[in-house]
Formats: sequence, structure tokens, C-alpha cells
Amino acid sequence: MAEVDPEAMALLDQPILGHLGFLGLDGYPRVVTVWFRHADGEIQIASRPDEYKCRSLRANGRAALTVATPKAPYLTINVIGDARVEPLPEAQRIDFITSIARYYLGRDGGDAYVERWAKGGHPGDGELIRLMPRRYGYWRS
Amino acid sequence: MAEVDPEAMALLDQPILGHLGFLGLDGYPRVVTVWFRHADGEIQIASRPDEYKCRSLRANGRAALTVATPKAPYLTINVIGDARVEPLPEAQRIDFITSIARYYLGRDGGDAYVERWAKGGHPGDGELIRLMPRRYGYWRS
Repeated sequence: MAEVDPEAMALLDQPILGHLGFLGLDGYPRVVTVWFRHADGEIQIASRPDEYKCRSLRANGRAALTVATPKAPYLTINVIGDARVEPLPEAQRIDFITSIARYYLGRDGGDAYVERWAKGGHPGDGELIRLMPRRYGYWRS
Repeated sequence: MAEVDPEAMALLDQPILGHLGFLGLDGYPRVVTVWFRHADGEIQIASRPDEYKCRSLRANGRAALTVATPKAPYLTINVIGDARVEPLPEAQRIDFITSIARYYLGRDGGDAYVERWAKGGHPGDGELIRLMPRRYGYWRS
């Protein structure tokens, strides 16, 4: 793959809200905001089981993730690739959500989030969306 | 259409970067950041002529625009609809870009942007993407 501007690539390792694009089951595109982790060369997104985005991506795994600085000067990275949706058993799901909530909200904010989210410690199983990049694009404007 | 939370709807009238989703010519979805105006019940986006997003939307006008607060607590609105791409003659293009640049960057920042952009006053013709909403969704998280 072509080399990507390192500053744009670094957006994937900052706690900026991601915008995930996919084709909805009705044939219209969708863009949903997601917390994501960039690990092992892929983009990982946790979900409640059988959400619309998971059902859509199971039907058509082609996806895009865009991450941009919210204010000018704008720097944007776009990842285009293929997504797989896998089970995320409760124990791993709690670890993933705890880690990502602290990453996005800081330690205290993250722990407060997880306490609300975990429903007494038993949030149940979820799903993990794994986006394998095929191509990167970036813009500076 | 179902009533949308007024606070979510109001995101369409704030200078927050929009994320426009559409199907790329290669069959993969795309998400690109855009400055947009919400006017006359539609979403308007200016573009240089014949950009990838315009060519893609001419081939398949189904589109989504998502606007979200960048920090928690997150409020997100999603517009799904059909886009038309129309010519935007130079004079109207200059008016549109001047207005939207001031809206997003403030008066001074906007004017400095337009000066760089206008290339001595002759940026040429462009295109206007008009997204007609079919459906709104919103999330609070």
C-alpha cells in the first residue's frame, strides 16, 4: 500500500470519534459514529449483539472509517477495507469496553461509563467488528 | 417523517464538520468530511467540478450525512436521502463558499480562506450537491 502521511496515520491512534460507513440493508449508505481501536493493523469496534451495523456488515462487509480533526486546519484519514463481525464473549467484551472507555473518556470518566454500561457486571456477549484495511487516503485542508 | 429530537435537529444548524457517506465507484462505501448548509429542508455541499464524490453520487445518489458533537456526551444526527449534483456557476460558487467559510471559520478566518481559495477572484465553476432527506435518525450516548 502507498505510504500514508505519518501525521494522518497518527489520527488512528488518538481518541477521536470515528465515522464508520457501510451499506445499509435498504441499499442506502450509513455513517455511524464509533469508538475504535487501531491494533494489529486493523480497526476494531465493539457492538451490542446484532445491531443494525453488524447485520449490514454481515450482508456486505465493505466499509470505510474516517477520522478527522474536528476544527480547522482539518486533517483527515480514510480507511477503506473489509469488515468481519465476530462474537465478543462477555469477559473479553468487558475488557475491551473498559479499555476503550478509559481511552476516550480518561480513567475516571471511563470507569463511570463502564459502571453504567455493565449493568451490575453482566452486560452479556457482544460483537466485534474487525475492519481490515485495503487502502488509506488522507486530506489536509 | 417521524419527529426528530429538536436538539439533534439543531446540529444541522451548527458549524460542525459533516461526514458524507456514499457508495464509491469501486463498490466500497466512502465517508468524506464536508462543510454543509442546511437550507430549504435540504443539505447543500459545494464541490470542485467532477470530484470523486460528485462522480460517485451521479452514478448512485443514495447518501447519508452524519453530524455529531466531537466530545462526550455525544449527540448525533443522521440524514439519509437522495443527492443530486448540479452545476454551481462561478458567481454563485463564490457567494456560497464565502458564506460557508465565514460560517465555519468566523468572519476573519473565512475571508482569509476565501482569499487563498479564490485564486485571484477566478476559481471557476463548481458543483453543488443537494441532499434531499428521506429519513432522520439520532443518538444520544
